[in-house]
Amino acid sequence: MALTVVGSIAYDAVRTPFGERERLLGGSAVHFSLAASFFTEVRVVGPVGEDFGETELAVLTDRGIDVGDIERVSGGETFFWRGHYEHDLNVAHTDDTQLNVFAEFEPKLSERSRNSELLFLGNIQPDLQQRVRAECSAARLAALDSMNLWIEQARESLVAAIGEVDILLLNDAELRMLTGEPHLARAAQAAMKMGPRVVVAKRGEYGAALFTAETVLAVPGFLLDEVRDPTGAGDSFAGGFLGYLDGAGAHDLAEDHLRRAMALGSVLASFNVEDFGTERVQRLKPEEIDQRLSEFRALTHFDDGPVTVR
Amino acid sequence: MALTVVGSIAYDAVRTPFGERERLLGGSAVHFSLAASFFTEVRVVGPVGEDFGETELAVLTDRGIDVGDIERVSGGETFFWRGHYEHDLNVAHTDDTQLNVFAEFEPKLSERSRNSELLFLGNIQPDLQQRVRAECSAARLAALDSMNLWIEQARESLVAAIGEVDILLLNDAELRMLTGEPHLARAAQAAMKMGPRVVVAKRGEYGAALFTAETVLAVPGFLLDEVRDPTGAGDSFAGGFLGYLDGAGAHDLAEDHLRRAMALGSVLASFNVEDFGTERVQRLKPEEIDQRLSEFRALTHFDDGPVTVR
Repeated sequence: MALTVVGSIAYDAVRTPFGERERLLGGSAVHFSLAASFFTEVRVVGPVGEDFGETELAVLTDRGIDVGDIERVSGGETFFWRGHYEHDLNVAHTDDTQLNVFAEFEPKLSERSRNSELLFLGNIQPDLQQRVRAECSAARLAALDSMNLWIEQARESLVAAIGEVDILLLNDAELRMLTGEPHLARAAQAAMKMGPRVVVAKRGEYGAALFTAETVLAVPGFLLDEVRDPTGAGDSFAGGFLGYLDGAGAHDLAEDHLRRAMALGSVLASFNVEDFGTERVQRLKPEEIDQRLSEFRALTHFDDGPVTVR
Repeated sequence: MALTVVGSIAYDAVRTPFGERERLLGGSAVHFSLAASFFTEVRVVGPVGEDFGETELAVLTDRGIDVGDIERVSGGETFFWRGHYEHDLNVAHTDDTQLNVFAEFEPKLSERSRNSELLFLGNIQPDLQQRVRAECSAARLAALDSMNLWIEQARESLVAAIGEVDILLLNDAELRMLTGEPHLARAAQAAMKMGPRVVVAKRGEYGAALFTAETVLAVPGFLLDEVRDPTGAGDSFAGGFLGYLDGAGAHDLAEDHLRRAMALGSVLASFNVEDFGTERVQRLKPEEIDQRLSEFRALTHFDDGPVTVR
């Protein structure tokens, strides 16, 4: 199985109450790819500038990620984001955004990238998402992420793009904004009417909720002793979630697979936030994933059955 | 087994995006008692005014709750709260508070109330909590709730009261405020150093997290299609949680019981918010609790075991 992801590749400058870094490898496609690479073959499509280093590229290739469709733009500079977090790590404060080569990004997919079983349309302009979706008509499953900017500025195009995918992943606030429904379960129902069979609401440190026509699932966030940098947690969640589904061949979206995918999304996000940028996931070992999945089950498991009631 | 709760009994006037009510039975001891009454014998201690009606009292006695220690103050009026919620149902906006008989409340416990196996010190002035705790020295388990007001105005007394109980239940924001620790898991560790063996962080619609020296548990909130009034959800959670522990004789706080107690807290809170005030819990049937517990397990359950990783 293989998965293609289209999205941003970036340099991030990040400050949190627990430290700061001036030049971190970042971007939605990067965090997503690293998380997904533990479960399936990953092909990444996105632009970088001439300043993008071999060291950063090696972070991806060391995890076996196919970087053949990373386009190096002559004379261009890589997308740059500077932000900080106060004590409430759920809220990112943006101090500077330089789109650079990302502003003129026109995704170019190789034959290999077009033929992946699963396609993830990361958070890019929705017209581009639609175009890539059409190019990857062979994909057995397509998923999409977006953000408040596109909901506000390109709603019609975004709704059309959502209409072409099987799975929609959004922050809970974005899902409410997209649908105009303050109540989460109803917002998810409204989003499903746009096309997707599965809607996942990402809830930051509180975990995630998943909705289909038949079922509702929820996982809390993993409760860590230490969180250093939440940047990329949502993308790591998506990478763990979709990477697992593709690697397991679960393109039919059977419920047991969705359950495990939600847990693995949370597990990968939990590793991501333990250190700055990609630092923790770069040194992550497969067996640590199995172990934390068991710990996560221990965190949430309980038995049902009749209780003594009066 | 039996449980004694000390706290407020109130009339609430509530407006939410889904309707409004001018005079609802409310108060922390009421919501708590109704939830706990499905699992154990409940004795409630609290003051009401001459305006408190037989109809409201019957809501409690119909559930078998012992109201012998509800003190009717001559010439007094019942505690009154008026508030409203906007679309974010996690935030209550207070429009009016009239403490009335609650301002001069001096808890008077009968022999019966003093001899319960479990004591719940609802959100009252912490000096009173300490006094009641000392009176109930026979209790095998004591738990305490509080609020930002006492953290700000009577911190020393509150910390002393917390030092005398086994279980501390607070909203996550209050737990951070009490300990000065922005990170939830560390805030819970700091609170445990004050005395309690178990710290429960209530997280509104996001569920709850539980910490002991050995373990961490988390449940998401139940994802309802309809929420009409969140008032009393935290008290219903505490009632389900502690009522179950007492009814099951789980005063040793064994982990499997704590797990089920967390789930039952969420289940009772989920019923509470489906309608205004106590309206939904008043018509709740025991078998609905069993059924929703199973639904809640279906919401959160997943299997662990090795996953295909690369």
